[in-house]
Amino acid sequence: MSTPTAAYSVRLRVRLPNVPGALGRLSVALGEIGANIVGLHGFEAKGPVLDEDVIVNCSDAAHIEQMREALVALDGVEILDFADRTFEMHAGGKIHVLATVPIVDRDDLSMAYTPGVARVCTAIATDLSLAHTLTIKKNTVAIVTDGTAVLGLGNIGPEAALPVMEGKALLFKSFADVDAFPVCIDTSQDETAQDKVDAIVETVRRIAPVYGGINLEDIAAPACFEVEERLREILDIPVFHDDQHGTAVVTLAALENSLKLVGKHMDELRVVISGAGAAGVAIAKILMAAGVKDIVGCDSKGAVTRERDDLNSAKRDFAELTNPSGISGSLKEVLPGADVFIGVSGPDLLDADDIRKMATDPIVFAMANPDPEIRPEITEGLVAVMATGRSDYPNQINNVLAFPGIFRGALDAGATTVTEGMKVAAAEAIASAVPQHELTPENIVPSVFDRQVVELVAAAVAGAAVTDGVCR
Amino acid sequence: MSTPTAAYSVRLRVRLPNVPGALGRLSVALGEIGANIVGLHGFEAKGPVLDEDVIVNCSDAAHIEQMREALVALDGVEILDFADRTFEMHAGGKIHVLATVPIVDRDDLSMAYTPGVARVCTAIATDLSLAHTLTIKKNTVAIVTDGTAVLGLGNIGPEAALPVMEGKALLFKSFADVDAFPVCIDTSQDETAQDKVDAIVETVRRIAPVYGGINLEDIAAPACFEVEERLREILDIPVFHDDQHGTAVVTLAALENSLKLVGKHMDELRVVISGAGAAGVAIAKILMAAGVKDIVGCDSKGAVTRERDDLNSAKRDFAELTNPSGISGSLKEVLPGADVFIGVSGPDLLDADDIRKMATDPIVFAMANPDPEIRPEITEGLVAVMATGRSDYPNQINNVLAFPGIFRGALDAGATTVTEGMKVAAAEAIASAVPQHELTPENIVPSVFDRQVVELVAAAVAGAAVTDGVCR
Repeated sequence: MSTPTAAYSVRLRVRLPNVPGALGRLSVALGEIGANIVGLHGFEAKGPVLDEDVIVNCSDAAHIEQMREALVALDGVEILDFADRTFEMHAGGKIHVLATVPIVDRDDLSMAYTPGVARVCTAIATDLSLAHTLTIKKNTVAIVTDGTAVLGLGNIGPEAALPVMEGKALLFKSFADVDAFPVCIDTSQDETAQDKVDAIVETVRRIAPVYGGINLEDIAAPACFEVEERLREILDIPVFHDDQHGTAVVTLAALENSLKLVGKHMDELRVVISGAGAAGVAIAKILMAAGVKDIVGCDSKGAVTRERDDLNSAKRDFAELTNPSGISGSLKEVLPGADVFIGVSGPDLLDADDIRKMATDPIVFAMANPDPEIRPEITEGLVAVMATGRSDYPNQINNVLAFPGIFRGALDAGATTVTEGMKVAAAEAIASAVPQHELTPENIVPSVFDRQVVELVAAAVAGAAVTDGVCR
Repeated sequence: MSTPTAAYSVRLRVRLPNVPGALGRLSVALGEIGANIVGLHGFEAKGPVLDEDVIVNCSDAAHIEQMREALVALDGVEILDFADRTFEMHAGGKIHVLATVPIVDRDDLSMAYTPGVARVCTAIATDLSLAHTLTIKKNTVAIVTDGTAVLGLGNIGPEAALPVMEGKALLFKSFADVDAFPVCIDTSQDETAQDKVDAIVETVRRIAPVYGGINLEDIAAPACFEVEERLREILDIPVFHDDQHGTAVVTLAALENSLKLVGKHMDELRVVISGAGAAGVAIAKILMAAGVKDIVGCDSKGAVTRERDDLNSAKRDFAELTNPSGISGSLKEVLPGADVFIGVSGPDLLDADDIRKMATDPIVFAMANPDPEIRPEITEGLVAVMATGRSDYPNQINNVLAFPGIFRGALDAGATTVTEGMKVAAAEAIASAVPQHELTPENIVPSVFDRQVVELVAAAVAGAAVTDGVCR
């Protein structure tokens, strides 16, 4: 059973006998089934009984059920309330749209709305560039998805993708004071893959007037490549596919710091990437730009080689760029001897034996979400550095280290696009946020709660935008 | 010169000689040119001088300039700062997107984002109806425009329309706690009028997964009719063109209360409507549903009649419904003898003589924004009831009396559409908010700051949705 996590957390209101040891018995019962009590609140003694709120983390949905049954079986314990905290947190959505100015009297209305607003409209109609100062466009980013590659869940559609986009919006606001709003595009009525690409591009082009930037999210490869490329061409605001470039930026930062620990260099590494989708291709590109020579990418059918005839155009590009020795075989067949494993694919693809067959001091970034390619518990003692995409393990290779600062910097600089220079600057800024003396195998990337990261990244990105001459 | 308004309000920081009468001289100078001092703050004496913030309302942009010159001409007065308050209020936009849940530690991240969010996504993918409870869809409305008929400004485009849509969003939030977000659609690359209609319909259909309702706004007639009709057909959430139905609902409420004052009845009225666009057609329809028999609509070429061969399809429909005696001629030619004038057209179309030629106790609703068909100053003593669309005159026939409560009620009820019954219920609720003993010619509609209005409207609309059987 995996480690209990806040993702499967329950808030219980329980009634216990008001006698010494009652809470102890409850704790022991929960401990015996591997559940973690992480909070106690709202204690209230009522004569022969006492009521209390208990927060319990479990490992999965079945474990939650097991925990409930264990409590029901306890003599004298009554469950008054039982709420799944994750669903409770998402109820009604996680963002809201508030006024920045109060509307309390007629004068406020006359300025914010009619007739005063007409003056602002007229000013923008006369000079379109004023939209960047007199409207929300100045600080607002669209989080665009079609719901075809959501987390590790695949094509679950635009409605089911919305909780992730809301989550992203709240991260944008919490970490970088960027106002972001979900745009979940329904392409269900578009017949061909090309129709779907066209639909996303057209929709984003049409709604772009409101936004100062476009964050593409969870759009499946290969559609995501063409969508990004075409939108970059037609829009005069930054367009950034976070699954590609956000992940690539943070992966590069993490690898830079890992190499300092194991004393290896980029140009001598053998890297195996599991996942030849959007993230895999972008990681390969940024690593090669950083000096890595030997990369083998794998999809579900094994190593991506120039010889395979079942590759879409993006994977053919990938095959051209990588696998210099042309090795073929399954992921498990090509991994032995590799210095670095980077997983952006699916759950539980590797076991301990696979890790043992890697080169000395293996570096494993198992970033599939929500379940990594191999669980950290399994790699203990076998790896030099282990990282995942999850927030409940050390070394989270989390896009949140990159995208808030990248957009903050791009918006602050009035950038019209995101250049390669801006991405590399972001990676270096993230790596630099872990000072040499704090660098350990469990601390290769800064905490997502390290507030200096967004400032470092934003400043580096804005500076690179100026250097690259892409400011409005 | 028209009345000074907050729409042309300036915040001055002035330095005056620290001697008795200095502020008096300033006040007299401003009074002489017809500017209104509406606020004094931040008084600070500094030896021989004193600094002070002065808020001054002017009549228009030229008047602001005149006011500045008058101050510069005053001996010993120095202007330290001079800010147009309307532009200041709009700088950076008027809404922002905030988190409803705090993100302060890893557990918060694990629940709000990965891995916990995957559980919520999976639940929605399994049962799409859960999007209405587990996401922002529950309380979020799109404010959709193409910028073709913004206020009285005409086709100013999607960027220049954004300040109005932001204003609308902040009204939605301030008055009804509805989260609304602007969707400004760029149709500049669509060649024909039909292409533009198709583009709006397609774009809204594609982005609908995020929203629990669609508020269409400032889309020119006749496109707005087809856009609304088609979206009502294909979407399973309320679609409401506010310029049509919001205006119609509040106009009906205002007319009901006006008739109580003049002792006339719906079925004996002669009504002239100036403006055969979206609002004009909707007003004619709702008035006829309320019992009015004799309505003549006018466009810029005069009365809309069945004989005219220059009418688009919407105006042909309008001609079929109205003008029973088939009178023709310009607005000024058809107005004499009318009991009611309703203007949803453009500025300064009528003068005092036109009003004198109306029937006894004329009712004039001059609702063009920002400048009415005739200014209230001109009609003083000539009308029984005068109303405008402006917030700085009495009797504001303002959609804000309708749309917040209509969407609040529709969202609360889980309505899948907005029915005629829901609109009529809204009009009756608005009229009822002015009790008989408070009904005067200057008080035919409730104040937009009367908090009971949104509650009355929401309850009436939700009830009508239940009666009409359109709840999810």
